[in-house]
Amino acid sequence: MSITLEQLIQWRREFHRFPEIGWSEFWTTSRIADYLEEMGFDILLGDKIINPEFVRGRQQVVVETGLAKAIAYGAKAKWLEQMNGYTGCVAVLDTGKPGKTVALRFDIDCVNVTETTHPDHIPNQYHFASLNDGFMHACGHDAHITIGLGTAKWLAENKNKLSGKIKIVFQPAEEGVRGAAAIAASGVIDDADYFASSHISFCADTGTIISNPKNFLSTTKIDIRYQGKPAHAGAAPHLGHNALLAAAHTVTQLHGIARHGEGMTRINVGVLNAGEGRNVIPATAQLQLEVRGENKAINEYMVAQVMQIAKGIAISFNVNYETEIMGEAVDMVNDEELIQLVEKIALQQPDIKRTDADYAFNASEDATILGRRVQEQGGKAIYFILGADRTAGHHQAEFDFDETQLLTGVNIYTALLQHLLA
Amino acid sequence: MSITLEQLIQWRREFHRFPEIGWSEFWTTSRIADYLEEMGFDILLGDKIINPEFVRGRQQVVVETGLAKAIAYGAKAKWLEQMNGYTGCVAVLDTGKPGKTVALRFDIDCVNVTETTHPDHIPNQYHFASLNDGFMHACGHDAHITIGLGTAKWLAENKNKLSGKIKIVFQPAEEGVRGAAAIAASGVIDDADYFASSHISFCADTGTIISNPKNFLSTTKIDIRYQGKPAHAGAAPHLGHNALLAAAHTVTQLHGIARHGEGMTRINVGVLNAGEGRNVIPATAQLQLEVRGENKAINEYMVAQVMQIAKGIAISFNVNYETEIMGEAVDMVNDEELIQLVEKIALQQPDIKRTDADYAFNASEDATILGRRVQEQGGKAIYFILGADRTAGHHQAEFDFDETQLLTGVNIYTALLQHLLA
Amino acid sequence: MSITLEQLIQWRREFHRFPEIGWSEFWTTSRIADYLEEMGFDILLGDKIINPEFVRGRQQVVVETGLAKAIAYGAKAKWLEQMNGYTGCVAVLDTGKPGKTVALRFDIDCVNVTETTHPDHIPNQYHFASLNDGFMHACGHDAHITIGLGTAKWLAENKNKLSGKIKIVFQPAEEGVRGAAAIAASGVIDDADYFASSHISFCADTGTIISNPKNFLSTTKIDIRYQGKPAHAGAAPHLGHNALLAAAHTVTQLHGIARHGEGMTRINVGVLNAGEGRNVIPATAQLQLEVRGENKAINEYMVAQVMQIAKGIAISFNVNYETEIMGEAVDMVNDEELIQLVEKIALQQPDIKRTDADYAFNASEDATILGRRVQEQGGKAIYFILGADRTAGHHQAEFDFDETQLLTGVNIYTALLQHLLA
Amino acid sequence: MSITLEQLIQWRREFHRFPEIGWSEFWTTSRIADYLEEMGFDILLGDKIINPEFVRGRQQVVVETGLAKAIAYGAKAKWLEQMNGYTGCVAVLDTGKPGKTVALRFDIDCVNVTETTHPDHIPNQYHFASLNDGFMHACGHDAHITIGLGTAKWLAENKNKLSGKIKIVFQPAEEGVRGAAAIAASGVIDDADYFASSHISFCADTGTIISNPKNFLSTTKIDIRYQGKPAHAGAAPHLGHNALLAAAHTVTQLHGIARHGEGMTRINVGVLNAGEGRNVIPATAQLQLEVRGENKAINEYMVAQVMQIAKGIAISFNVNYETEIMGEAVDMVNDEELIQLVEKIALQQPDIKRTDADYAFNASEDATILGRRVQEQGGKAIYFILGADRTAGHHQAEFDFDETQLLTGVNIYTALLQHLLA
Repeated sequence: MSITLEQLIQWRREFHRFPEIGWSEFWTTSRIADYLEEMGFDILLGDKIINPEFVRGRQQVVVETGLAKAIAYGAKAKWLEQMNGYTGCVAVLDTGKPGKTVALRFDIDCVNVTETTHPDHIPNQYHFASLNDGFMHACGHDAHITIGLGTAKWLAENKNKLSGKIKIVFQPAEEGVRGAAAIAASGVIDDADYFASSHISFCADTGTIISNPKNFLSTTKIDIRYQGKPAHAGAAPHLGHNALLAAAHTVTQLHGIARHGEGMTRINVGVLNAGEGRNVIPATAQLQLEVRGENKAINEYMVAQVMQIAKGIAISFNVNYETEIMGEAVDMVNDEELIQLVEKIALQQPDIKRTDADYAFNASEDATILGRRVQEQGGKAIYFILGADRTAGHHQAEFDFDETQLLTGVNIYTALLQHLLA
Repeated sequence: MSITLEQLIQWRREFHRFPEIGWSEFWTTSRIADYLEEMGFDILLGDKIINPEFVRGRQQVVVETGLAKAIAYGAKAKWLEQMNGYTGCVAVLDTGKPGKTVALRFDIDCVNVTETTHPDHIPNQYHFASLNDGFMHACGHDAHITIGLGTAKWLAENKNKLSGKIKIVFQPAEEGVRGAAAIAASGVIDDADYFASSHISFCADTGTIISNPKNFLSTTKIDIRYQGKPAHAGAAPHLGHNALLAAAHTVTQLHGIARHGEGMTRINVGVLNAGEGRNVIPATAQLQLEVRGENKAINEYMVAQVMQIAKGIAISFNVNYETEIMGEAVDMVNDEELIQLVEKIALQQPDIKRTDADYAFNASEDATILGRRVQEQGGKAIYFILGADRTAGHHQAEFDFDETQLLTGVNIYTALLQHLLA
Repeated sequence: MSITLEQLIQWRREFHRFPEIGWSEFWTTSRIADYLEEMGFDILLGDKIINPEFVRGRQQVVVETGLAKAIAYGAKAKWLEQMNGYTGCVAVLDTGKPGKTVALRFDIDCVNVTETTHPDHIPNQYHFASLNDGFMHACGHDAHITIGLGTAKWLAENKNKLSGKIKIVFQPAEEGVRGAAAIAASGVIDDADYFASSHISFCADTGTIISNPKNFLSTTKIDIRYQGKPAHAGAAPHLGHNALLAAAHTVTQLHGIARHGEGMTRINVGVLNAGEGRNVIPATAQLQLEVRGENKAINEYMVAQVMQIAKGIAISFNVNYETEIMGEAVDMVNDEELIQLVEKIALQQPDIKRTDADYAFNASEDATILGRRVQEQGGKAIYFILGADRTAGHHQAEFDFDETQLLTGVNIYTALLQHLLA
Repeated sequence: MSITLEQLIQWRREFHRFPEIGWSEFWTTSRIADYLEEMGFDILLGDKIINPEFVRGRQQVVVETGLAKAIAYGAKAKWLEQMNGYTGCVAVLDTGKPGKTVALRFDIDCVNVTETTHPDHIPNQYHFASLNDGFMHACGHDAHITIGLGTAKWLAENKNKLSGKIKIVFQPAEEGVRGAAAIAASGVIDDADYFASSHISFCADTGTIISNPKNFLSTTKIDIRYQGKPAHAGAAPHLGHNALLAAAHTVTQLHGIARHGEGMTRINVGVLNAGEGRNVIPATAQLQLEVRGENKAINEYMVAQVMQIAKGIAISFNVNYETEIMGEAVDMVNDEELIQLVEKIALQQPDIKRTDADYAFNASEDATILGRRVQEQGGKAIYFILGADRTAGHHQAEFDFDETQLLTGVNIYTALLQHLLA
């Protein structure tokens, strides 16, 4: 095979150098598109892969600032035009022979972390640390992009050995579980018979594959905004419509949503900002909250309660309100066929010493939305974890991972494609 | 004049012996009607004087129990039939000569107090203490009935000296400010040019008339009832619609209604009962509350806020709700012409030594609803206080008042009529 | 063996006829003591088996009314004297030979249900329905008493075949999980090497033994009472210390106690009563609530939060408060040795066709407090379910069970003792 | 008299050009001190006039930024040294002859307003608009400084005509009613027999003096800060100590503080900021609030309730808390002697056409704290309004006032001193 670790490391370091936050991955998408075009893929962009109605947590100011920086850093006009404001892309390869359709998904955004300047940090030693101040690939999505490109390259060179169709999704805005819903709703992978995605280095060291992480928490991220009416707090408090007071009562009601008899729930109002000045009846309030549930149905129960509360509060306090879904993920159960297959393949890799089937993920990941979309259409899905040693926990300024495992990642995906599309 | 103190005392003691609580004054009304019929008055009863839509705080069980007791005690079928379930009556006298119309109002209900059995208590010494267990004329409304009857008797005997028309309102359910709204809304005194009413012994001793009590508080008494859905608190809390939790949030919202920039407000949830058992999500809750305002408009602001809150809570907590107005009174400003007249007349009475124009009433009285109704139609109104020594405060088991002032009361009303209808 | 089904049925029907609610089982205890004395047991009563400090949910009025009725029904003075107000008893039998100590526990109280008068109901057909109006053995504790007495009788007749010591606990006030804590805290079974208890007919029909019910919910029942200061709601609201408002805020805070990351929690304020009248700042409030947790530690977290909230509220609202533990139960895990043993014995009974090891109890039972007390001292414990057909669900007016299984129950306990104390 | 309008206008424009916000008036104080020194006054600075314990609403960052700018703009080291971080000064003049002591007070801080750039605005026409971006003398305190300096100049030149002692207070931080408490508590005017202060142009045009503004609202500005403990909202919510939830409950409790039976109250939580991120149990929260009362006692009732609530909440939610008084003002009643005197003097001024005794101020002003301090020591106090036409309302970017009235102001103060210290 022509994919070398050197090539993968070179890619990874290129992407590491210019990390972009969710919904602003304009340069990243452009650069991925360059490579995919070279390899001969059809590239879908913009509203071909994004259903705007399901776009979550996309702030205009972030998009605009990101776009300007991306252009300055070299994003190409032809790709930007096709993106039409929405980042991410899907590479499609049709072998021309009848067969199954396989969708792979790799996420491409970074996090709001300022990379350490410590000289021991490898990106500093080898001069590929983030050039984009305040942002860093501290969650390993640069590895995901790289494994996606490596797999694409192999495919391009080996397509005559396969039958059926391959779709490689480069997904924006995984952080905050914001990007997957819009891609799922675009229908771009509705024809997939198989879906696979993975995370690098999360709770697993070099040498281990976790083939069946469980306990993906269904979650929805919601913003509530109240608009009331200001008034002088001394002279005419009765003329005000108090958005801050409405928000405070919202918080007390939200935290009192009844536990669910059939499984775990969570509620957190993480941020509340309200009011304009000490002596003015507050006219505005914003709440950032999230709910979780042990499964999709329980999470939906929580969301319904939140919406009901916001609606009632708006009436009680005579304020206007709006709610916005800022992110979402569901639970997903890996299909047995794919678990067996990934385990078998994994153990054939020289670096992999063991596989763990039973592992509680206990976090949220929006690949689940895409995986369940495929399952709901009758397909099969898997999300697995690719072990890799790391220098610090994910989302920390000192995070770095064992780059040698990039090749293991590519090898697993290409073996998977060979099995599924033989 | 043919009205003697002996006659008045005899009446007063007869009514004292069988006190009836608001909306159950069936015997009381029947007995008043007997006397008025004898004197030759037209007597209006039932829906001629009551607009059922504005009846406040009338509980069916109280009505039924009261009716049964009243029949047993001798209430006459012919009156009961005309009452048709609603107590109180209005006596009308038309002099046949053109002139003004004067409406007088006397309230007839008792309070929920058990009369003292102390041998020093005059009703015990003279054997006219309450025969109706748990009820007592401890607010002096027996005096009001008596003064009304005395005034009626004088009128019947002196009608040829007057011109115009007289309406004497014997009003039910003043306690809890529940009865006046329904009489006002019936329109029965809409043609009055003058309105007068009074209270005996309230904060004034024998020898004093308070001609201009101020600071009547506008108030509305409201019940809120929530109906939710029970569920097992351990197994299925998410299936419950929690009425108790809804009620608790209602309380916290109600007490936070914004102060009014233009005057005093009050809010009190006085009683809250909710829930069926410790391990059941509570399905029912009842709140008894009241609001007040420095004037009618401010009180209405408070009522509107309460209604808004109940509506919003019902949505937030997915419970059904109902609100019921249980009582109401407004503020009223006495007309200067009548203040002057009452003061002049009062000082002509042998027992009256002084009049007080400036006095803060600081309580609620629903005669104000009738007085304002007359004022809104262009008439003039007064509410005054007839001093009388007392043995204990109003609403206490030991309450009794100086019966000699019954005659002073009748004399003031009859002098008033002579001035207004000469 | 000399224990006959006829004898058991006769006992059962005697106890069924005079059901007594928790902490008022004076006649029941007295009658049990009569039988045990006849059989030759040492009988421990009153503070020998009850630690008053841990008595939960015992209302004086219930105790006094119950005592009067029990005396009228024939409770013996000599036992009442030893009870000294606290019901329940422990029968002790020492074989005189060295060996293990086994504690068995049978609960004896009834529920607040009025027995059906339907002629098909067997207690009506055979004339042993409840004579104590409003109370009924609708949870099968009459069966438990009977099995306890049957086991005692066998023991008395076969004590020479055994070694070691037996303690048979007849526990009061299981309903509301109120009685076990006081018995545990008395130390009366601290020397036990084995503990066994059971429930009849709960979710299991004749022919089945559930040897290992799981998911006992740890729970604590708590009352909170606030004492504030009344004041006139119109004239001087600032002078009041508002207990109703304090209670409402308590409810909103309680329902917002944070979910626990390690397992299920529950909170329910089931009953709230507060206030004296609509126009008085409320001076009193009572809350009846319960918390639950997936295990003892999580339940204790909930209790600690409740206590903290009550304390803080009392300061915020300047009211006095008291909290009272009204009941409690913990989770318990059956010991494998006893599970095996009960299964083996059960399958030797002619009527038993199958045993179920895995069953989610999903309710609370305070035998767990006694079982865990023994386990904490190094002993082993089991709680199992003795199947029996029933005519209606537990706690229903039509409840009755298959009396033939009383004998199965006795046989299992006696076999257990033979194995453990051979 | 040697005080000319030209001189006054020159001073006013100098101070207008470099406005400084409360507690940062370093250059302003330095420049006032320059002039006072020239005139021959003793100048008290720093802790001679400020009791640090009563300093309200002084933010370190504002002080430091202000100090740096003031130095750059020319504040003198010798004065800064004496100020020791605290702005404002008191000029003392002892006539050497026995007599009364009179304290006058002029406030010197500006507001957070960016001055208009409109060419019609007089400060733009004559090139004296604010050089300190974001700040502006839009409340007329530049006029107050000027009148204070004019009065001082007259005094210096006429001290031989007077007996007794004069103290001229140049007070910092009146906006937000923050500066007076610290000066009062320093005791620097405790020996005053008379106290006078005034505002220019507030609701009164050129030609009018309001000699007796009423309804100064007592008020206290309070910040509450909670410090909890963060935790992962999904994995371990029970480990968090939720400061945002504590803050929300604080708001709902604060708005429910009982109305006061004896007079108006107000409560407003104007700003609330809490939380660090959507999926973190919030560890911090800040509330900015204010209370008001119809008089000092009622305001103190409100403050006491706020403190009680914060304390209780901290316990309920297991968070640390701190409260800080950020500002305060009281009500004050002008003394009749001074009202009469000011009216007499006013009407002797050529520009003054009328005086208004009765005027509802309906706002807060911390000169009241100084005035009441003098009254509590047996002295007499007045606060009056000096009419002056204006181009826009106070605190607006277009605000400017009729400079000719600066001379009227000086004339009134000097006449007052002549009367009181003749």
